[in-house]
Amino acid sequence: MQPSITTVQGLVRAAARTVLGDDVRVVGASRTDAGVHALRQVVSLATERSLDAASVARALNANLPGDVRVIGACEAPPDFDARRRATGKRYAYAIDTGPVASPLLRRYAWHVPAALHLGAMREGLAALRGAHDFSAFCAAPGRGAMPECRVRAVHVVVRGARLVVTISADRFLHHMVRNIVGSAVLVGKGTHPPRWVGEVLASKDRRLAGPTAPAHGLFLVRVLYGEDE
Amino acid sequence: MQPSITTVQGLVRAAARTVLGDDVRVVGASRTDAGVHALRQVVSLATERSLDAASVARALNANLPGDVRVIGACEAPPDFDARRRATGKRYAYAIDTGPVASPLLRRYAWHVPAALHLGAMREGLAALRGAHDFSAFCAAPGRGAMPECRVRAVHVVVRGARLVVTISADRFLHHMVRNIVGSAVLVGKGTHPPRWVGEVLASKDRRLAGPTAPAHGLFLVRVLYGEDE
Repeated sequence: MQPSITTVQGLVRAAARTVLGDDVRVVGASRTDAGVHALRQVVSLATERSLDAASVARALNANLPGDVRVIGACEAPPDFDARRRATGKRYAYAIDTGPVASPLLRRYAWHVPAALHLGAMREGLAALRGAHDFSAFCAAPGRGAMPECRVRAVHVVVRGARLVVTISADRFLHHMVRNIVGSAVLVGKGTHPPRWVGEVLASKDRRLAGPTAPAHGLFLVRVLYGEDE
Repeated sequence: MQPSITTVQGLVRAAARTVLGDDVRVVGASRTDAGVHALRQVVSLATERSLDAASVARALNANLPGDVRVIGACEAPPDFDARRRATGKRYAYAIDTGPVASPLLRRYAWHVPAALHLGAMREGLAALRGAHDFSAFCAAPGRGAMPECRVRAVHVVVRGARLVVTISADRFLHHMVRNIVGSAVLVGKGTHPPRWVGEVLASKDRRLAGPTAPAHGLFLVRVLYGEDE
């Protein structure tokens, strides 16, 4: 929610109030910065009304613009809260490595016209797995903010001219994926060796990491619930 | 080119004139309707200037907006003309068959929330192969217009929630692919049996074919030169 700016959260809340009344409680699992995409954001709606989930989904879509869609809905226990119950999230970051930026990808991938060394990127990013203090990749660590995150998986795959970095963790710090990707690209270009990623992580010093990759390549892919991925 | 409307052709011609002078001759291989996409349009530029092709491509991109890109350039014989020398074209038409229209595909696929029968669509579309009078699938046949086209290949593939119909032919009539796809969807839904496509073709009667599929699902995929695909 932001005053006088159209946001996904604002649109969903307005639609939920239209469909379920002004007393509906709307909780999104994850906030995303401007320009960031979400493929499967999870939102919990707490209401006294008795409407089946499929009807709520249809009614919400009828009250949302075409670039925000409810793709599924189900009933949850009364104490379910999309944000508090989440045990992790998975993000994907797309890089367009073609020599010329694809017009079809320009809002959905960071254009890096370079032959990125996949093996070096994988080797460097492997240092992030496990529980660490990620202050080095955090935009602006607040006082008392918890800088520890447990990274469960990091993958780098190539799909045509797109290189996609996927990171799963129990939680993420602000700009964490974008800062990690900015650093990974420096390794892919050969500016730094793979071991540099682990060195930056250990330093806990944001000034040592690479630049923040732009928002428009980032996708919230999944919100995770329960023990496993 | 259209007066007071921004078009790809207009943008490319303006960029070419900036780069190569006002006497440059610009010929695009294929016109596309508003909303239709082109992945590999071919344009020939005839100029007296001696600039290498890679420099021309870079300079054009510097003078074009990000949603129009030159992705490659090469020298051609002096008598080359992108339109006259083309021996065929390939189009793809994308259908989003998911229950809810994907926000990411809404400008790039026709949303048909139905379980389309792939086998029936393939069987029906097979009748189009070869040389036929395609008047039944032509928007508005002009007087003296040649209604014969030779369809070299028709394919229907599924990629996730997207169903893609690809058609290669030596030439295409106005709205031909969109009318064929509109009819193919009726077969996929079971509204008509597969043999109906061949019957519509043989009738040469536009009124018997299905509706025109919307422009935004259509992609010009390749312009073909030479004997083979």
